[in-house]
Amino acid sequence: MAPSTTTTYTTKQWILASKPTGAPVLSGPDATFKLQTVTLPPLKDGQLLCKVRHFSNDTGLRNFIQSTVAPERFYVPTVPVGSPMRSGIIAEVLESASPSYKAGDLVMDFHLGTWSELVVLEAATSQKLAPLPKNLSLTHYLGAFGASGLAAYTGLKFAGGAKPGDTVVISAAAGATGSMAIQIAIHLLGAKRVVGIAGSDEKCAWVQDQLGAHACVNYKSPTFVEDLKAATPEEVDVYFDNVGGHVLDAMLTRVKKHGTIAVCGAVSGYNSDEPMALRNWFELISMRINIKGFIMLDYMDKAPGILQELIGAVADGRIKLQDAETMVEARIEEQPEVWMRLFSGKNQGKLITNLIV
Amino acid sequence: MAPSTTTTYTTKQWILASKPTGAPVLSGPDATFKLQTVTLPPLKDGQLLCKVRHFSNDTGLRNFIQSTVAPERFYVPTVPVGSPMRSGIIAEVLESASPSYKAGDLVMDFHLGTWSELVVLEAATSQKLAPLPKNLSLTHYLGAFGASGLAAYTGLKFAGGAKPGDTVVISAAAGATGSMAIQIAIHLLGAKRVVGIAGSDEKCAWVQDQLGAHACVNYKSPTFVEDLKAATPEEVDVYFDNVGGHVLDAMLTRVKKHGTIAVCGAVSGYNSDEPMALRNWFELISMRINIKGFIMLDYMDKAPGILQELIGAVADGRIKLQDAETMVEARIEEQPEVWMRLFSGKNQGKLITNLIV
Repeated sequence: MAPSTTTTYTTKQWILASKPTGAPVLSGPDATFKLQTVTLPPLKDGQLLCKVRHFSNDTGLRNFIQSTVAPERFYVPTVPVGSPMRSGIIAEVLESASPSYKAGDLVMDFHLGTWSELVVLEAATSQKLAPLPKNLSLTHYLGAFGASGLAAYTGLKFAGGAKPGDTVVISAAAGATGSMAIQIAIHLLGAKRVVGIAGSDEKCAWVQDQLGAHACVNYKSPTFVEDLKAATPEEVDVYFDNVGGHVLDAMLTRVKKHGTIAVCGAVSGYNSDEPMALRNWFELISMRINIKGFIMLDYMDKAPGILQELIGAVADGRIKLQDAETMVEARIEEQPEVWMRLFSGKNQGKLITNLIV
Repeated sequence: MAPSTTTTYTTKQWILASKPTGAPVLSGPDATFKLQTVTLPPLKDGQLLCKVRHFSNDTGLRNFIQSTVAPERFYVPTVPVGSPMRSGIIAEVLESASPSYKAGDLVMDFHLGTWSELVVLEAATSQKLAPLPKNLSLTHYLGAFGASGLAAYTGLKFAGGAKPGDTVVISAAAGATGSMAIQIAIHLLGAKRVVGIAGSDEKCAWVQDQLGAHACVNYKSPTFVEDLKAATPEEVDVYFDNVGGHVLDAMLTRVKKHGTIAVCGAVSGYNSDEPMALRNWFELISMRINIKGFIMLDYMDKAPGILQELIGAVADGRIKLQDAETMVEARIEEQPEVWMRLFSGKNQGKLITNLIV
């Protein structure tokens, strides 16, 4: 028989080995992830064989693998045990079975990206990456010009209803989404006063000095509640919450009457089995506070316009991306450890893996 | 010298003796309230000397005497230690220094009412009670046609945005506000399915059989979470929350995408020093839930129209007030104990004190 003309490829790929209770486990018999080598199926029409260049490291992935939310109430498909761990990626097309792509094109994918060296993507659901002005790194499509920037913008403007003249507070202000939210609130939405909340004095200094926040409060300080009060003397119109927990609890005492809390995340609880403890819930009633959970996917019709606005603001210097991206060189074997740095409290800005082979 | 022509009156009056931590204490050295006898000041122009007939017993009063909310962020003035305990009242005018009132008139007052036998009210801020159709008791002005009915209506319609065809869930469904909310949702707002949550099988039977709820779930049952799920097979558009705590936590898993939680109260925490524990907070994000704290005082411009609608619905039999009011005969000495029955889990409907002298 003639040999098949189809070349087969194998790749290393992380699969979800078990659902963690609490923090994911990186090694040993209870390891959350397991590295395996798999053979990729032959390309079908419309598919792309791609080599992964970058992983987008996002705290939200923690909920993809295990959360209190039933899968049918989760906002995207979750990762079943035994399946490849999903991730936003930037990849380079090696072989294309789609007329829209050729070898060498760079694509971004949040749907079918996995922690793998090689992936098969669908041309129809991948996004071809256009060059950015001023030679900005294409990796910003994973952060400032991707999910982080869109979450920051849509959460502030549409969920939070931020208006010119508002006082806005943003938690995880030194993170990928928070660092964009600080700058968007100031430069694109006309907030009068923007206050960050972050987990170290160093981060707070960056949020104030580099991102331009009017103040930034360290939530690990023993005087956090007093500091927060002092930083918001006229109370708060919109609180953009990435963290939940005791920071949210404190913010319930600072949001003004009829103010809004836009809830983007609750990272303080992602690796914990403990329930979230709120002492100040009655403020919700006494101050008629509005709390809105949101997902930026609900605003995708507005995404092109927002991205144009964000790219313009970076190009003309209003929004600064300097030091807002942390790039880690890593082999595929190290990817779970890289991702877990998000939960160490040490990361600044968008954490991106530069995959080395 | 000629004797003064002004008659002076004395009255027994409960004052707040100390702020409770946890449940109010009824007796002993740590008693929350203290009964004293005071001499009332002479009437000024525009004032009314009144004899109290009824106290409105409301769980919300618990927060007037002590809560986590700073007084400047509370929705009405709180009660300082040493001041008379406030309460909604119905009273009979004994002496009037206002042309708008004469002796024998019945007035309602939520601003200056106190736990006293005699009170001095301001004519300008008191409400003269008009007769009700079909000889309905005037005490309904304290409940169904007062704060409870208005909170139920405005919370469902304006904070909750309940629409015809919605599935609505109401906690503390056998309470003063909840029992009105159940009936308002069904008969005035056109809900397709209305589910109560209450604290005993007896209450649940009343909520279903007498108030007309399509189902009612006992939150003290070990199968509460499963029962709640079974009672809401198509999930929930609007949850009207009176209780907070583990009932709210369970409801976070039942509200549908973009659904609303209108928060009227959080009675599960009023007598507790423990923070509210939520395990399902991430549902707020994954299902884009909207949580709105509200106070019916914000809708007072709509109150006359709503009251007319409520009175009409009772007059034509759509809303039933039978067994929806619990009247307790009590002397002034017993009033703190009567009020505390609200927290025993045994009260049904509006709890009213008929003050006997």
